[in-house]
Amino acid sequence: MLGLGLIGGSLLRAAVAGGRVAWGYNRSSDTVEAARADGFDADSDLIATLKRAEADKALIVIAVPVPAVDAVLSAIAEHAPGCPLTDVVSVKAEIAAAVSRHGLAPQYVGGHPMAGTSESGWTAGDADLFRGAVWVVATDDGADPTVWSQVAQLALDCGSEVVPAESAEHDRAAARISHLPHILAETLAITGDAGGPLALGLAAGSFRDGTRVAGSAPALVRAMCEGNRDGLLIAMDEALDLLTRARRDLAENGSTATLVEAGYAARSAYETQQTSDITGITPGDDGWIDAMREAGRHGGRVRNL
Amino acid sequence: MLGLGLIGGSLLRAAVAGGRVAWGYNRSSDTVEAARADGFDADSDLIATLKRAEADKALIVIAVPVPAVDAVLSAIAEHAPGCPLTDVVSVKAEIAAAVSRHGLAPQYVGGHPMAGTSESGWTAGDADLFRGAVWVVATDDGADPTVWSQVAQLALDCGSEVVPAESAEHDRAAARISHLPHILAETLAITGDAGGPLALGLAAGSFRDGTRVAGSAPALVRAMCEGNRDGLLIAMDEALDLLTRARRDLAENGSTATLVEAGYAARSAYETQQTSDITGITPGDDGWIDAMREAGRHGGRVRNL
Repeated sequence: MLGLGLIGGSLLRAAVAGGRVAWGYNRSSDTVEAARADGFDADSDLIATLKRAEADKALIVIAVPVPAVDAVLSAIAEHAPGCPLTDVVSVKAEIAAAVSRHGLAPQYVGGHPMAGTSESGWTAGDADLFRGAVWVVATDDGADPTVWSQVAQLALDCGSEVVPAESAEHDRAAARISHLPHILAETLAITGDAGGPLALGLAAGSFRDGTRVAGSAPALVRAMCEGNRDGLLIAMDEALDLLTRARRDLAENGSTATLVEAGYAARSAYETQQTSDITGITPGDDGWIDAMREAGRHGGRVRNL
Repeated sequence: MLGLGLIGGSLLRAAVAGGRVAWGYNRSSDTVEAARADGFDADSDLIATLKRAEADKALIVIAVPVPAVDAVLSAIAEHAPGCPLTDVVSVKAEIAAAVSRHGLAPQYVGGHPMAGTSESGWTAGDADLFRGAVWVVATDDGADPTVWSQVAQLALDCGSEVVPAESAEHDRAAARISHLPHILAETLAITGDAGGPLALGLAAGSFRDGTRVAGSAPALVRAMCEGNRDGLLIAMDEALDLLTRARRDLAENGSTATLVEAGYAARSAYETQQTSDITGITPGDDGWIDAMREAGRHGGRVRNL
């Protein structure tokens, strides 16, 4: 486990709780001390940690912040080039491209557990953080079925359900449901505040809920949104198109019917969505990648391997 | 009290609880029976109710749905033209214009209590619904200071704080914090749903909160938004402009800094907003209307008269 913040630290705990032999690296010796004090195997020496992984052919999980990923990949390419490799970063295409630049693509299968809290750091970690969550396992052309299965099994062992998706498709989906909400919340907050104390003083539940995530730390929001530029641009263009049409409909016909009825139907679809078990697709069989992706697109989840 | 739904029914209860002599009208005899069974003075005969008001020069409160307002105003003009008049409808300029068409402008001062629940009807009413809420009292050119004070006193007696605002200014503010949130929630819901089951299956808190009000009944959302067309168009244009600039910034510079930092500042302004007592302005004194409006614009509230 490279990185022992909220996600990496929770994952180290969950892996050990699930009976695995697992150990972690963190740059900060304070974090390492805290992890050791809690009874975990942790080190602030990256090279030693990677050499140990290489000797065991252990599955390496990259759980460092995005700006640190490149340096960690360099070290992996030098000291642990034979290990299967995954990550838990919230964008996938950008990480996959970086992995390729370091020549590590053959042994890499990306991942994204849809879990988190507003807290951060080792002490905020929880072995049960991933229980009941969805964990996207990247299902890209050429994915090694053995590594794919190792990553999926880690997710299952942590109590998550696996959604198979191509990296770029994951990023486009995440833009719609995770990054666009931030963009619209910021927009609503600014437009409300432009009405001054009179407007803000009249604000009630719809404004409070609609702007909640505008209270997130700007640096985190920027890293998320800017790291998924292509996917977010698609979602923003769709939102702009909907709003432009709604504006015209209201100005010309005095009606908001088209937008409001479609929005109500969409929210209902979200509230009533169904998932299904993915069964009968074995990683490595002919066409398994396309079959997994297609199942993931339709709400399918791997709940057993 | 004309109309005994959630707002009118709560207001009848609150007025009586505050020691006033108050009586209500509702079109539905079931509602009237329910109100009577709870010990309130109610009738399904509009003309008789209005004649009684005229005899007492009672303050009439219009609390019927928007589509019924015009018919009620006709009856008031015929049977109770001498009564002071207010309303509790969520848009103000449209109601003020209808009141003028019926020749009732001199005795009318509009109102909008910012209170409600997701329920409706007499049985959902609560004498404490308005306690701690903000109640906008329309402060338009030519407002009769005696009627203005009567309306403000009713709000205060119900436990609310009075925000003085011109009708059109109220509507523009309400568009920013009450109607635009619905438009953006519908837009987010549609854009998320367009990602299919894969996207909806990955949605977490930011999407859930950002689309919550898209689950409101479309007819109610439409009535609210379409009844405030001019104000909403201004807010939508501002939102479109912000989104268009943010889209360009992301596409050309890979940055969301401008939007995200301004959004964070705006949400912080909302969270830390201050209000102040309005004192020393007496309705009827020279310049009282401008002074009241100016105080309302800066977060001022009348807490005593």
